[in-house]
Amino acid sequence: VFGTCVDWRTSVARQARELGDRLGVGPVDWPAFADAWRARYDPQMENVRSGARPWATVDVLHREALDDVLAEFGLDEVSDHHRDELTLAWHRLDTWPDVVEGLTALRRHYVIAPNSNGHIALQVALARYAGLPWDAILGAELARTYKPEPEVYLRSVEALGLRPPDVLMVAAHGSDLDAAAACGLHTAFVPRPHEHGRPPTGKERPRGPVDVEASDFVELSEALRDLSRGEAARG
Amino acid sequence: VFGTCVDWRTSVARQARELGDRLGVGPVDWPAFADAWRARYDPQMENVRSGARPWATVDVLHREALDDVLAEFGLDEVSDHHRDELTLAWHRLDTWPDVVEGLTALRRHYVIAPNSNGHIALQVALARYAGLPWDAILGAELARTYKPEPEVYLRSVEALGLRPPDVLMVAAHGSDLDAAAACGLHTAFVPRPHEHGRPPTGKERPRGPVDVEASDFVELSEALRDLSRGEAARG
Repeated sequence: VFGTCVDWRTSVARQARELGDRLGVGPVDWPAFADAWRARYDPQMENVRSGARPWATVDVLHREALDDVLAEFGLDEVSDHHRDELTLAWHRLDTWPDVVEGLTALRRHYVIAPNSNGHIALQVALARYAGLPWDAILGAELARTYKPEPEVYLRSVEALGLRPPDVLMVAAHGSDLDAAAACGLHTAFVPRPHEHGRPPTGKERPRGPVDVEASDFVELSEALRDLSRGEAARG
Repeated sequence: VFGTCVDWRTSVARQARELGDRLGVGPVDWPAFADAWRARYDPQMENVRSGARPWATVDVLHREALDDVLAEFGLDEVSDHHRDELTLAWHRLDTWPDVVEGLTALRRHYVIAPNSNGHIALQVALARYAGLPWDAILGAELARTYKPEPEVYLRSVEALGLRPPDVLMVAAHGSDLDAAAACGLHTAFVPRPHEHGRPPTGKERPRGPVDVEASDFVELSEALRDLSRGEAARG
């Protein structure tokens, strides 16, 4: 979801800037602030994956990381109340322009659900904010660990009453798709070259092969339609 | 969901009759068949609640109970293939006529989710079949036990990032509401007098008080709107 469906960087930077303007702090490079916040995410999740700390939602992780990032940007004056408020910026993220149309088209023929590291409450807020038409909210919270741990993929597949080869994992991040493929899921790569506000480095691409690559979710829905027609034609 | 949102009895009886006609079995009293199938549900769940057997989805429970019910109705000739098929009748249940309109109105102001004993895959199928506009699919599978165990209510509340008093449990079954109230949730009773095809006995009603009683989901959405206006007026 983060990066694949929604443009977290622009959305978080905008909301942080709005709060900063309201509080009269700065000047601050708010996109760099969003990047610094996001950069703390994976090491935090690693502590949960490794068992060094028990399951904690990304709200908890975001709130802890925010303290560090505010200190890094010399913004220690921001109150706890405003820190709590800004943490919820991650519940209000704008989609890439193709996402709602593409998901709506996909949903005509497939069950669609996020398999995100974001917990259920965050995904519900995000879906309501952005109009994401999910059939169910799945993901890390069901397994109480974080991707790319196999349990996250397998628990989401199981929750749908399916087997891994019945499911297509869609992501802009190769590491996510490589982990899904290792669990036996099909994979689709949808690159999001503007996620980080700098040219892609190539590390976003999966190391292994994918079943489908599409430039956005509308093209993905068309590619899957063509694939199923091909399969029907082959009998 | 079962009984509160959907008319399981008529829907299951109709699908069983369709299969029976196709197979040329019977004559069978199909509504009585549906009742007999449903009657096995609570004792089966009790085995999970008590820990006598590990978590099993209602698909598994329905499939096991079906063997007993077919025997009771002298229908041992039905093949395993057709038993598996008929088990999925519980994924295709028609709503009471007010449900989609009422849920759609409720969703404008509230997050709505099933807190059902039905597992996620079944709820997804049901929502797609009947057009139930849930924000998320919650319920027994998250807690891996069955209502009225408190964990089921508390785990669903927690998944939404809420506390029990932030949540309203809606049901046609008093035992469900009494259990929710004991966990600190608000409660709304929506009687469904046609659920069992016989007059209500009074046992459907909650023993304790409820916050709201409404004759259907549209009236419930109006009652909640009036309640929130009253709270706003009281400041």
